[in-house]
Amino acid sequence: MKLKPLYDRVVVKKVEVEQKTAGGIILPDTAKEESQIGEVIAVGEGKVLENGDVRALKVKVGDKVLFSKYAGNEVEIDGEKLLVIREEDILAIVEE
Amino acid sequence: MKLKPLYDRVVVKKVEVEQKTAGGIILPDTAKEESQIGEVIAVGEGKVLENGDVRALKVKVGDKVLFSKYAGNEVEIDGEKLLVIREEDILAIVEE
Amino acid sequence: MKLKPLYDRVVVKKVEVEQKTAGGIILPDTAKEESQIGEVIAVGEGKVLENGDVRALKVKVGDKVLFSKYAGNEVEIDGEKLLVIREEDILAIVEE
Amino acid sequence: MKLKPLYDRVVVKKVEVEQKTAGGIILPDTAKEESQIGEVIAVGEGKVLENGDVRALKVKVGDKVLFSKYAGNEVEIDGEKLLVIREEDILAIVEE
Amino acid sequence: MKLKPLYDRVVVKKVEVEQKTAGGIILPDTAKEESQIGEVIAVGEGKVLENGDVRALKVKVGDKVLFSKYAGNEVEIDGEKLLVIREEDILAIVEE
Amino acid sequence: MKLKPLYDRVVVKKVEVEQKTAGGIILPDTAKEESQIGEVIAVGEGKVLENGDVRALKVKVGDKVLFSKYAGNEVEIDGEKLLVIREEDILAIVEE
Amino acid sequence: MKLKPLYDRVVVKKVEVEQKTAGGIILPDTAKEESQIGEVIAVGEGKVLENGDVRALKVKVGDKVLFSKYAGNEVEIDGEKLLVIREEDILAIVEE
Repeated sequence: MKLKPLYDRVVVKKVEVEQKTAGGIILPDTAKEESQIGEVIAVGEGKVLENGDVRALKVKVGDKVLFSKYAGNEVEIDGEKLLVIREEDILAIVEE
Repeated sequence: MKLKPLYDRVVVKKVEVEQKTAGGIILPDTAKEESQIGEVIAVGEGKVLENGDVRALKVKVGDKVLFSKYAGNEVEIDGEKLLVIREEDILAIVEE
Repeated sequence: MKLKPLYDRVVVKKVEVEQKTAGGIILPDTAKEESQIGEVIAVGEGKVLENGDVRALKVKVGDKVLFSKYAGNEVEIDGEKLLVIREEDILAIVEE
Repeated sequence: MKLKPLYDRVVVKKVEVEQKTAGGIILPDTAKEESQIGEVIAVGEGKVLENGDVRALKVKVGDKVLFSKYAGNEVEIDGEKLLVIREEDILAIVEE
Repeated sequence: MKLKPLYDRVVVKKVEVEQKTAGGIILPDTAKEESQIGEVIAVGEGKVLENGDVRALKVKVGDKVLFSKYAGNEVEIDGEKLLVIREEDILAIVEE
Repeated sequence: MKLKPLYDRVVVKKVEVEQKTAGGIILPDTAKEESQIGEVIAVGEGKVLENGDVRALKVKVGDKVLFSKYAGNEVEIDGEKLLVIREEDILAIVEE
Repeated sequence: MKLKPLYDRVVVKKVEVEQKTAGGIILPDTAKEESQIGEVIAVGEGKVLENGDVRALKVKVGDKVLFSKYAGNEVEIDGEKLLVIREEDILAIVEE
């Protein structure tokens, strides 16, 4: 069973981040909007612009991405927690 | 009796998902916006763009789709629970 | 006395739906936004697009339509309950 | 003293509607947004579109119109209750 | 000391209206949004459209105008109560 | 240390206005949105329009301006209270 | 581990500002929206305009910037508190 996201949506598999590992990413628990890490496992064909053109997404399958903790819709497939989010809710690509 | 959705609307028949079947989709009960599975049974002719052009929808009759639990308007025809939603509220096509 | 709706507005006469008739439409009483059935008795000349063009409406006089229970403005003429709604609040045309 | 409405605004003189006259319009007291009848006594030169063009209004002085009960700004001139509303808040022209 | 409003803004000097003078304008105290009379004492150079063009305002210095009671920002210069409002909050020009 | 505002933003140094000086500006304490006086000390390069063009700002360094009391972000540099606001929140230029 | 922001987003490293240092920037604790200082450590490729063109950002890596205290999403990498914000939430570049 597989999800094929529509348009500018992206399917992300959440990555469990160990708290406070050296050199890792720590997602703080503050008043600011928090963020979350995940791996892109499927991308839509692109965002439809107002003139009807389609603009391909920038994120690719395999990218590790940072996104707002409150973005997207959750679903669980084959025991994996997945998230379907719009690309505009992705803040950054995380590079090693 | 049949529904013919207008423009970018889609008629979806809800699929009852068994909780926690192996390899199935589990719709979690968390703080995130939940999602739901259904089968497309009718589609509108397309979304009217700002310049007046009509853009055909991407989902087709027979597609299994994932959509936000809070999207759309409910109606029941011949004992079937149907939902009329906009295509932009469909998150992904579910492939076997 | 007759109503001639402006632009993309449509006048709809509410159809009383018997609850749970075989093969009929049942409008459920759930948390989702409910819908309602009516017959179109007058349509406006069309929606004015941003560039000033007018786009004719898709619904026609005589169509039976499904629309959100919370859409539109009510008025009663000659004992008939009428509703003036925008075409974009019509979800689908109901075909026999 | 006279009001000359600007752009897409219209001055309407409220018509007192007798409740439940045969063949008349009854404005119900329900949960839906209520509507009101009036006579157009002045119209603006037209709505300015996004490209700067002006589009003449469709309603004319003398038209009887139906509009949302909550639309517009009230003013009283020479003992007459007037309402200044945008044409887009006019639902329909009322014809005899 | 003088105010030179920017773009589509207009400086208006409030006119004290005697309540219920014969032939005058009465500003009612109802649930509808109330309106107010003033005299235009300065106008901006025009509204900037989305394409960057500037569209000159329609109201001129000396015009008596009707505007929503809740529009604009108040300031007092040399003992005069002034209001800086956008032209789109002006409902109508008041003619004798 | 100096602030160079971005795009359509403007840095303003608040001017303390003596209450009720003859010929001065009095900022009233009413229900209407109040306004404030300041001197422009830096301006951005211009507002980016939807088509990507940049439109230069109208206010210049040295202008005394009137702006809404609730607009902008405060900062204090070298003991001076500064405000960074968008040009569209400036109501008028104050001329002697 | 490095963040590569998408489109018009910018990664900023917060600068701890000593309160009330001579010649420094003081971020007041008032009713107005407060602001914050940071150093840009990564920028996206640019903002996608409505016509699909990409407009490069104005801020560059190394710039010290002033931004609204409530903008952006927080993340902590290798012990550094970072913020991912949109360029439009940056108020000004801070120059020495």
